Amino acid sequence: MTEVALFGAGRIGKIHAANLVRQPGASLKYVVDVNPGFARDLAAQHGAQVVDAQTVFDDPAIGAVVIGSSTDTHAELITRAAAAGKHIFCEKPVDLTVERAQACAKAVERAGVTCLIGFQRRYDPTFSALKARLDAGEIGDPEVLIVTSRDPGAPPVEYIKHSGGIFKDMLIHDFDIFRWILDDEASTVYASGSCLSDPAIAEAGDIDTTAVTITTRRGRICQINTSRRTAYGYDQRFEILGSGGMLQAGNVRPTEVTAYGSKAVSQDLPEAFFLERYRAAYAAEMAHFFDVLQNGSTPRTSVKDGLAALILAEAAAKSFREGRPVELSSAHNSPLADVLAAVGAAAQ
Amino acid sequence: MTEVALFGAGRIGKIHAANLVRQPGASLKYVVDVNPGFARDLAAQHGAQVVDAQTVFDDPAIGAVVIGSSTDTHAELITRAAAAGKHIFCEKPVDLTVERAQACAKAVERAGVTCLIGFQRRYDPTFSALKARLDAGEIGDPEVLIVTSRDPGAPPVEYIKHSGGIFKDMLIHDFDIFRWILDDEASTVYASGSCLSDPAIAEAGDIDTTAVTITTRRGRICQINTSRRTAYGYDQRFEILGSGGMLQAGNVRPTEVTAYGSKAVSQDLPEAFFLERYRAAYAAEMAHFFDVLQNGSTPRTSVKDGLAALILAEAAAKSFREGRPVELSSAHNSPLADVLAAVGAAAQ
Amino acid sequence: MTEVALFGAGRIGKIHAANLVRQPGASLKYVVDVNPGFARDLAAQHGAQVVDAQTVFDDPAIGAVVIGSSTDTHAELITRAAAAGKHIFCEKPVDLTVERAQACAKAVERAGVTCLIGFQRRYDPTFSALKARLDAGEIGDPEVLIVTSRDPGAPPVEYIKHSGGIFKDMLIHDFDIFRWILDDEASTVYASGSCLSDPAIAEAGDIDTTAVTITTRRGRICQINTSRRTAYGYDQRFEILGSGGMLQAGNVRPTEVTAYGSKAVSQDLPEAFFLERYRAAYAAEMAHFFDVLQNGSTPRTSVKDGLAALILAEAAAKSFREGRPVELSSAHNSPLADVLAAVGAAAQ
Amino acid sequence: MTEVALFGAGRIGKIHAANLVRQPGASLKYVVDVNPGFARDLAAQHGAQVVDAQTVFDDPAIGAVVIGSSTDTHAELITRAAAAGKHIFCEKPVDLTVERAQACAKAVERAGVTCLIGFQRRYDPTFSALKARLDAGEIGDPEVLIVTSRDPGAPPVEYIKHSGGIFKDMLIHDFDIFRWILDDEASTVYASGSCLSDPAIAEAGDIDTTAVTITTRRGRICQINTSRRTAYGYDQRFEILGSGGMLQAGNVRPTEVTAYGSKAVSQDLPEAFFLERYRAAYAAEMAHFFDVLQNGSTPRTSVKDGLAALILAEAAAKSFREGRPVELSSAHNSPLADVLAAVGAAAQ
Repeated sequence: MTEVALFGAGRIGKIHAANLVRQPGASLKYVVDVNPGFARDLAAQHGAQVVDAQTVFDDPAIGAVVIGSSTDTHAELITRAAAAGKHIFCEKPVDLTVERAQACAKAVERAGVTCLIGFQRRYDPTFSALKARLDAGEIGDPEVLIVTSRDPGAPPVEYIKHSGGIFKDMLIHDFDIFRWILDDEASTVYASGSCLSDPAIAEAGDIDTTAVTITTRRGRICQINTSRRTAYGYDQRFEILGSGGMLQAGNVRPTEVTAYGSKAVSQDLPEAFFLERYRAAYAAEMAHFFDVLQNGSTPRTSVKDGLAALILAEAAAKSFREGRPVELSSAHNSPLADVLAAVGAAAQ
Repeated sequence: MTEVALFGAGRIGKIHAANLVRQPGASLKYVVDVNPGFARDLAAQHGAQVVDAQTVFDDPAIGAVVIGSSTDTHAELITRAAAAGKHIFCEKPVDLTVERAQACAKAVERAGVTCLIGFQRRYDPTFSALKARLDAGEIGDPEVLIVTSRDPGAPPVEYIKHSGGIFKDMLIHDFDIFRWILDDEASTVYASGSCLSDPAIAEAGDIDTTAVTITTRRGRICQINTSRRTAYGYDQRFEILGSGGMLQAGNVRPTEVTAYGSKAVSQDLPEAFFLERYRAAYAAEMAHFFDVLQNGSTPRTSVKDGLAALILAEAAAKSFREGRPVELSSAHNSPLADVLAAVGAAAQ
Repeated sequence: MTEVALFGAGRIGKIHAANLVRQPGASLKYVVDVNPGFARDLAAQHGAQVVDAQTVFDDPAIGAVVIGSSTDTHAELITRAAAAGKHIFCEKPVDLTVERAQACAKAVERAGVTCLIGFQRRYDPTFSALKARLDAGEIGDPEVLIVTSRDPGAPPVEYIKHSGGIFKDMLIHDFDIFRWILDDEASTVYASGSCLSDPAIAEAGDIDTTAVTITTRRGRICQINTSRRTAYGYDQRFEILGSGGMLQAGNVRPTEVTAYGSKAVSQDLPEAFFLERYRAAYAAEMAHFFDVLQNGSTPRTSVKDGLAALILAEAAAKSFREGRPVELSSAHNSPLADVLAAVGAAAQ
Repeated sequence: MTEVALFGAGRIGKIHAANLVRQPGASLKYVVDVNPGFARDLAAQHGAQVVDAQTVFDDPAIGAVVIGSSTDTHAELITRAAAAGKHIFCEKPVDLTVERAQACAKAVERAGVTCLIGFQRRYDPTFSALKARLDAGEIGDPEVLIVTSRDPGAPPVEYIKHSGGIFKDMLIHDFDIFRWILDDEASTVYASGSCLSDPAIAEAGDIDTTAVTITTRRGRICQINTSRRTAYGYDQRFEILGSGGMLQAGNVRPTEVTAYGSKAVSQDLPEAFFLERYRAAYAAEMAHFFDVLQNGSTPRTSVKDGLAALILAEAAAKSFREGRPVELSSAHNSPLADVLAAVGAAAQ
């Protein structure tokens, strides 16, 4: 039985709580949140106690922590949890700065704990089936990846101001998809963007529409297009062209009703937003976390993946600011060396 | 808090157990099964006790029973549960004979308890969305209903011998769909059939392929086609033509991957069988049962629906045996009168 | 060079004219129509002459006739053309009575000419691809055929009064599809029907909605559903379940535009009606006619197919009138014997 | 009646010939080709004469020329035809150099003749329906355009060597699509690329896979992805995200057969290559040409569109060579001024 503490009792915290209590061999002992009411309600629902962070780290019975609190708390909680020898599940992003994310990576490595970053898309049934079929060679060598990632609507401008910008806040997932699907690292990143949906976003110094091109070390190409707002809901698709075929991952519909009316044949819009679209993915990533802890399975994501995605986000932001492609290069081959070297390269 | 006893710890019993323990305000107290090992394992998993049926009916703390045991036990358990004043959720069919099913209907009516019959398709997200849109008038008046219902493979011949025949065993669901979707009653039933997949089924006195046509009191038409075996899995679709359009309910795919190969563009086969296809439906019907018990919602199905579907199955079997359409008629208007009168008509 | 005379300069006549002048080795010499203006316009467009029927049959240079005039003229024109040794392409149906259609079959057989009946659906790219794949064994033995055939709107009641009834006028195509796809003959036919779209159709003694079930000599089953009116256009689909899979033939859309709006994802309605839906089929059937005449290819349809479809239509009409299935049987194996014997059986 | 001369009797010449002889009021008088056999065969098929170019330009009866000969002849033929006062339909591209294409534009303008460039995609039923719906405001303001354009296989390397490079040879169509759909002009172009399918293409100094990003004057974004080779045939799709929805233009399938096998549900691959995919488009563009000539309709494309696409191709090639975005700017507003100014900008 792994006793677990949960940081964050908000929207995503509730989802993680509901999923973790279903894991055989997992038990939710503590809930920590800056909002006492949120903490109390969620703890009561699952028979857990409300405590402060120090209590969590001091309790030797706690085997793992789930971090779903606000982004600015991630790095400190990861570092303290690692120091206390707790295994870690942390929502993306690790942090908004590469330096602090690197420090997390080092702390985790030093402590030898598992640190899974919540890139939940990797656990989506459609995306993971596509990845498995790609890895099985169904379409030969991957050559071109097209990622479409659009939100139904922009968050409040107040949120955007502290989000770290669209590349870190929104495309962080797409950069992770790029690395995961292609199993390759970026050589150059070029980012264009525009503010088309809401002038307030531009006033806040951000954009709402982006187009990113990544070339990889092996000569592959990835194009990402994102928007903060569509009229038709959440749009999460990608396709990969390989030497022997193409695989597409489409949106998921709530129902399979098709209607023939007098004007058109129509079907449901895609699932409304990430909570609906990735419901199964959130459940699967939590199951994976406990599978890693209890059965020694290989973690599908690590803090280094979180760091690598962040480095790509910084490179994209820099490319956009400077209106030119940014190079990410490395002379070394080990993944961590890559990541560290890449930081240097991106900071050029 | 409603304390519940579960009859049947087999495949479907496990699903009902898992769904009922998730209902707020429901608690699984007892598990009853002729196989002590099955009962013990399922009871242990959910912290329930293994008891015999009498204990269930004698315990005034038990508010409801869930019946997932073999078909031949349903009628007796319904009758005893009703007599003991317990609310009832019972898997389809109520029974294989109209007489015993009628007795159940009377017992339930006399006791004034809720008796929900597990026609889980009514809770499928796609089917129930279609029904809601139809009822909202999206396609005007319904005129023609086409039901396609095909299993991935036939059950063992030993099962078929005691199944009551394909019309009662398999089409019982389709007859319920017909009544639910069209909100109308059969006027005539004509059934054709053939044994095409396995001669052993014919030797057992049954068929594996059917085509049923129902005309309704309001002049609508329903065509049902079923098969015990497809090469491509479970196929559960229907479409309804209305005066103002058409609605189709399609199969559900495990993933939304589309593959472009050198020969074809392909997608996943439908969900493999009923446990996968109707996973969400099983959860929703159990939630509905407790919503009825705790919030007084109107039951979506009753023992009378179970009886009515059985009467249609008998009429279809008779039509097939005699090679002619069978009439179902009634001079009365109350639903139960209809059902009772229909029995007389079908028995002509 | 085959010199051709065209009977009928109306809507379908114009289509046949346009297609036949494109055939290498074919030349349109004469146009015959009861409406002199129609004949003159069409003849002028293609450099042909307007003549009467006798001129056609007396001209030894004429090798073939294309009959696209009204149904009541077909039998006489077929008989005269056969007697004159002309090859014949005739729009369906051969006639509205089995007796006259039989006489045509005999006349054609006696004369040894080709007589292709215009069941254009057999030439539709989608339908003929499905048939070729079925014949190649892709889904094993065919078991169940579901035919959906719905018109966008009913013809004028005046037309309906002289149409021979829905089974001869509309389902004649579906009966031909049944025979062509399954390569099997009917054993029993059961027809239900209703008048749901327009009371005037009922007053004219006809119905607008039908459901037909055919069982075949080899135990296969076919269900046909038709309607005179949909809100969404022309609907022409079928699917065939085989022992090793299923093949579906879907509707054709004018364009492949998909629109994501704020309510739904939508696509084009199917092609509007038969002239649009079967444009390619009309061209292909005319090419086939000349391929038969000039290269000796085997005719894909014959006057016997026209007769057989008519017999099924009569059997269906009889079944509907009498409210019982009608048997079609034969002790003989040659196709014509079948057809002739079937008439006797249907007339029982 | 417009008498027409056709230059080029190869593959595309034959298509244009077949389409132009079907235009009411058009007559094919002359065929010109460097290969006498090709010219003779095509002329014979349509009752035309084989002549040399000078004869065409000297014949005052010739009202229009259709140029389907090799790319290196286009500029000279356009210039001579314009000087002779003939209207012109010319296959893309105008030329491989901006200078010569500009000279053509000036010659055409001076002569006041129509010069339609064969960007046939603008006439594709799916693409033109999408454009019409976009222009009608169905999805509000366009924001992001994604163009996917992939060939089934690369042409021979010998062809590639003289093709002008992938940006001029293949993407010229996509640059035209961009300008047509968005009704906007490029502000910057950034092109990445790789050679992944065949090293011989790299040895010839070209690439086979590209990813282009265009930002427009109004802040919109276009991403183009192309490949010389897919395993699944010709892939021609695009989608446009607007403020009020999204429109997608999908591939066209030869048939609407869907097959359910034991592994997957599959449909036809897209139409094989441009001759199949754009059959209707080639017919429609020729009809449009004669509609312009005879009814004074506004030409859908002009030599300036050909020039503008070429300028984008040059800018993309330059961007790829230099590894940086290239700006295209203009201070003027008239379309031609734009184009001319753009040349200067692209040459920076």
